[in-house]
Amino acid sequence: MKLKNVMENKKVDGVLITNKYNLRYFTGFTGTTGIALATAKNRYFFTDFRYVQQANTQVVPNGFEVVKVERNALDGVSEYIKKDKIKKLGIEDKDVTIEYLNSLKKRIENVEFINLEDELIKLRMVKSEEEIEKIKSAIRISDIAFTEIQSKIKEGIKENEVAAELEYVMRKNGASDKSFETIVASGYRSAMPHGVASEKKIGKNEFVKMDFGCYNNGYVSDMTRTVFYGDEPTAKHKEIYYTVLEAQKLAISKVKAGMKASDLDKIARDYITEKGYGENFGHGLGHGIGLEIHEAPTVSTKGDIILEENMLITIEPGIYIEGFGGVRIEDDVVVKKDGCEVLNKSFKDELIVIKG
Amino acid sequence: MKLKNVMENKKVDGVLITNKYNLRYFTGFTGTTGIALATAKNRYFFTDFRYVQQANTQVVPNGFEVVKVERNALDGVSEYIKKDKIKKLGIEDKDVTIEYLNSLKKRIENVEFINLEDELIKLRMVKSEEEIEKIKSAIRISDIAFTEIQSKIKEGIKENEVAAELEYVMRKNGASDKSFETIVASGYRSAMPHGVASEKKIGKNEFVKMDFGCYNNGYVSDMTRTVFYGDEPTAKHKEIYYTVLEAQKLAISKVKAGMKASDLDKIARDYITEKGYGENFGHGLGHGIGLEIHEAPTVSTKGDIILEENMLITIEPGIYIEGFGGVRIEDDVVVKKDGCEVLNKSFKDELIVIKG
Repeated sequence: MKLKNVMENKKVDGVLITNKYNLRYFTGFTGTTGIALATAKNRYFFTDFRYVQQANTQVVPNGFEVVKVERNALDGVSEYIKKDKIKKLGIEDKDVTIEYLNSLKKRIENVEFINLEDELIKLRMVKSEEEIEKIKSAIRISDIAFTEIQSKIKEGIKENEVAAELEYVMRKNGASDKSFETIVASGYRSAMPHGVASEKKIGKNEFVKMDFGCYNNGYVSDMTRTVFYGDEPTAKHKEIYYTVLEAQKLAISKVKAGMKASDLDKIARDYITEKGYGENFGHGLGHGIGLEIHEAPTVSTKGDIILEENMLITIEPGIYIEGFGGVRIEDDVVVKKDGCEVLNKSFKDELIVIKG
Repeated sequence: MKLKNVMENKKVDGVLITNKYNLRYFTGFTGTTGIALATAKNRYFFTDFRYVQQANTQVVPNGFEVVKVERNALDGVSEYIKKDKIKKLGIEDKDVTIEYLNSLKKRIENVEFINLEDELIKLRMVKSEEEIEKIKSAIRISDIAFTEIQSKIKEGIKENEVAAELEYVMRKNGASDKSFETIVASGYRSAMPHGVASEKKIGKNEFVKMDFGCYNNGYVSDMTRTVFYGDEPTAKHKEIYYTVLEAQKLAISKVKAGMKASDLDKIARDYITEKGYGENFGHGLGHGIGLEIHEAPTVSTKGDIILEENMLITIEPGIYIEGFGGVRIEDDVVVKKDGCEVLNKSFKDELIVIKG
């Protein structure tokens, strides 16, 4: 059991899980109000009357016992911390606020707190088959949105309208929400790596960079495509597009388990640098996805994690030229023993020209 | 200056603002990465290269000086804390995580931290004319969505599809996002006060309760309407609807500056109790809205804040009967000296029947 190993390695008697993604991962709970406490022998899940029934269905199969709490859940939590004689308690330092910790400290004495957040998050890096299926569903929905949006990009449409359409198609196809603020950046705005959709109208002979994704069954998708709106892309448009495309395909062809994340980043980065655009690729090659849109591992020059089979990462090189525009192409891939599986099926092999 | 008063009252030499809503409120910054530090004499805004230009436009007019920081903003922040010789620093305990505080403590010595979060949030309760205009715009968009949704509720439509339509109409009419997870709860699910839209199909002769809102210019709207889908509501459907409606109208007719929030709650609650449904109104009458969907003041049995002119609150009584269904009617109102202004214009005075 993963939690047990972390507790033993870190020499804690228990771990308090409050981060909503960790909570969902370890207990299966999909509601909004709950806290989990794992100790050497026991697994408790604290929630109030509104969620007891849901918790019984979701967390019991994962080995957690449901404890119904009254107004302040920490009353219940602290009671069980005492009952199980916990002296060293793992908590999530990036998630727990000062107020929350003070509130807990008021209720218990002589307990030492140890930050375990990074360890817990790392346990989520390698995905199960079931998780991969959920992510594939989310990706299928994004792929549909990309197919449908191409007929909507027309004279005078605003970036915000394109974003609204993408979000609507995803929602109609089963997404519960978008997984992050939709990026639609056209023309000069496409040079901004994170240009969320604005009131700018899409003009003729411009790149339209769309980075979007959705939630489905709690898991996310994340994809980017860049298309050209107008008559005929210039040589420069093509050069940038195909440089990014080749860098992406190269990284995809090389990724496999056992490789260091930063080495994967280097493959795409070296290619882009060789073509003279190294300075224009100002972000990491990718990141893990799962319950969260950005989770471990980081795939950048600083990514020191060794990729393992069934990690799920994005591969998304880009080139951004201020005053001209930019291109990013992003797919989600599952790392395999001798390669990877690309989950997005949306076309990218040629620069799509939407006649305008 | 509001911040100065809080610093003087709480006897701190400075206040560090990290909560994104407080940050926007006090500095005007709409980006995602920034920290503000206000001291007796100075106002600093720390951000990285990506946001310097935006910060210059947005925060300088509000009296903040932009300080460009490198990778970890706390390096810059701590330097200025030392420079201005701050010994007692106000922070936001509900927002600052343990990791963040530890990271700050590593960089500065002999500084005492005082929680000022509640004081800062309370400064946002009374809205300016400009804020009220922004909220009105968001409300107008929600009202349009309610008008348009009525023709979409048809045989076999799922709650999730109704939610998708509401969100789409808001987005198309200028909303940047929904302001919370859209609630569409029909039939037996309408008895759940917070039943977010599900895969349930809307059936004949059911209540359809819709609670939704959007962001526009950073400010939110929040409204609820309950309609009836089918042939003819039963006497029970009507009794519940009109009891909630009368309770809401009564509260609206009585609200004014100088009144305690809990007394306003009591007016609606007493009416509903008198009609025999006191046990079925299990939540507060309302809450403040503004930059956040739930902000001070709380309008419930525990609401101890005295309402002031230009506070913006929701008034949303409800009756929920398990196994039968539920009704909530919610409008956003501006508290005035001798009454209030109801900002929602959507019809509610009769139970709308959508023939199905």
